[in-house]
Amino acid sequence: MIIVGELINATRKAVKAAIEARDRETIQSLAKDQAEAKADYIDVNAGVFVENEAGCLKWVIDEVLEAVPEVPFCIDSSSPKAIETAVGYLREKTSLVPMVNSISLETGRFDALIPLLAGTDLKVVALCMSSEGMPETTDQRVSVADKLINKLVNNNIPLENIHVDPLVQSLGTNSDYGMAFLTAVERIMTEFPGVHTMCGLSNISFGMPARPFLNQNFMVMAIARGLDGAIVNPLDRKMMANIITAEALAGKDSYCMNFLKAYRAGAIPG
Amino acid sequence: MIIVGELINATRKAVKAAIEARDRETIQSLAKDQAEAKADYIDVNAGVFVENEAGCLKWVIDEVLEAVPEVPFCIDSSSPKAIETAVGYLREKTSLVPMVNSISLETGRFDALIPLLAGTDLKVVALCMSSEGMPETTDQRVSVADKLINKLVNNNIPLENIHVDPLVQSLGTNSDYGMAFLTAVERIMTEFPGVHTMCGLSNISFGMPARPFLNQNFMVMAIARGLDGAIVNPLDRKMMANIITAEALAGKDSYCMNFLKAYRAGAIPG
Repeated sequence: MIIVGELINATRKAVKAAIEARDRETIQSLAKDQAEAKADYIDVNAGVFVENEAGCLKWVIDEVLEAVPEVPFCIDSSSPKAIETAVGYLREKTSLVPMVNSISLETGRFDALIPLLAGTDLKVVALCMSSEGMPETTDQRVSVADKLINKLVNNNIPLENIHVDPLVQSLGTNSDYGMAFLTAVERIMTEFPGVHTMCGLSNISFGMPARPFLNQNFMVMAIARGLDGAIVNPLDRKMMANIITAEALAGKDSYCMNFLKAYRAGAIPG
Repeated sequence: MIIVGELINATRKAVKAAIEARDRETIQSLAKDQAEAKADYIDVNAGVFVENEAGCLKWVIDEVLEAVPEVPFCIDSSSPKAIETAVGYLREKTSLVPMVNSISLETGRFDALIPLLAGTDLKVVALCMSSEGMPETTDQRVSVADKLINKLVNNNIPLENIHVDPLVQSLGTNSDYGMAFLTAVERIMTEFPGVHTMCGLSNISFGMPARPFLNQNFMVMAIARGLDGAIVNPLDRKMMANIITAEALAGKDSYCMNFLKAYRAGAIPG
């Protein structure tokens, strides 16, 4: 499972305040804690600083790099310009290959980001969204994924560097949205062998009670359908226990070694 | 989800003792508690009483029928003779259609049970086991299921009365056994529309630590792949919370009504 640690996101009040105050300690300890909790990537998002997003990202990058030089970044922004600046900056500072979060089939966004990505070794989150809006059904998700994957591959981005996000929507809006996502994950993983899937799945429980329990169960279901990456809080011990256990049950943990190690470390309930 | 309440099973010491002592209260309260916890069937198993299994079953049936006349039975035995006696006895006492647990493709067992089942409205658990032994892979499971379903249908047992059990085996023995089962569930549900699937899934964690957590997660994964029945302890609040939540996430709970009702009743953690 590819874990993208989501905590350094300026939509979170404490992170916004830390970036505003150039509070190195807060940012660095978020980075260290996530690295210790086995995050494979550290997501950084400074999108709330509309006037100076790229500048804020650079500062965050410096701090995180100093704290955890061995964990690659996931550069998370709705601004192609900010992504370009941050990736360029990172490339000068580390040889670790970052992930770009995210490209989509929306015309403006695709065209703005493809020059940065084409022919490179960058990892990219490919969000199943098009200029026609958000997909509703499994078929719509797979259709957008199909077009997006093909366009990326035609731009010399290897399949194994593409992490398709089939887009989780709230179960409270439509009882079929969970299954539409899950079936899309399975079809994408089956129809494009080698590609990855990725998502931030907490939207599933938007507007519902018992959100953590819904999110944990949905993660387990997604792993059962083939999901191999997620943008989560790696410090959420319950969620991580579910991920480790689901991976073992899904046959992705030889001899259940990782599960047994986690159990011995007290990380698995019961 | 079709819940078969598993508690009245004489392999459990307290149940064995209660049957031996003709302790009506213990058996009746197990029946009532499971009915209250929404069991769709009450499983009864008296297999440990080799000398007088059918007699013990009859006594248990009388007690359970008096306690919960509105819940059908699941007659659970490895002895075709005991099943035949119990089903005959039940048919005289109630119009509720029982489930037979289980037929398989093992020659002796199939031939012994088919006269009882053929052309009737009895529900039947069809265990994916053949004279060649236990299946290892998904393909072997689906192959046995295919033959078994066809033979049952050819004996005028409607598809919707067949509950295929693809056979859960321990993850500790082979890391692929979880996925072999899960994929078999999905293929059986897809390739034989109308058929049901059913299992006792606690074997998945046999020999492992943290068994309840493994079992709960495996249940959630199986529901994500289409499982629509299980032989479980309906008094296990955590497992039932997982089932209710997974059903909502799998789009099997219109407007999440059942989930929300369970949440309001305090049955969903978090």
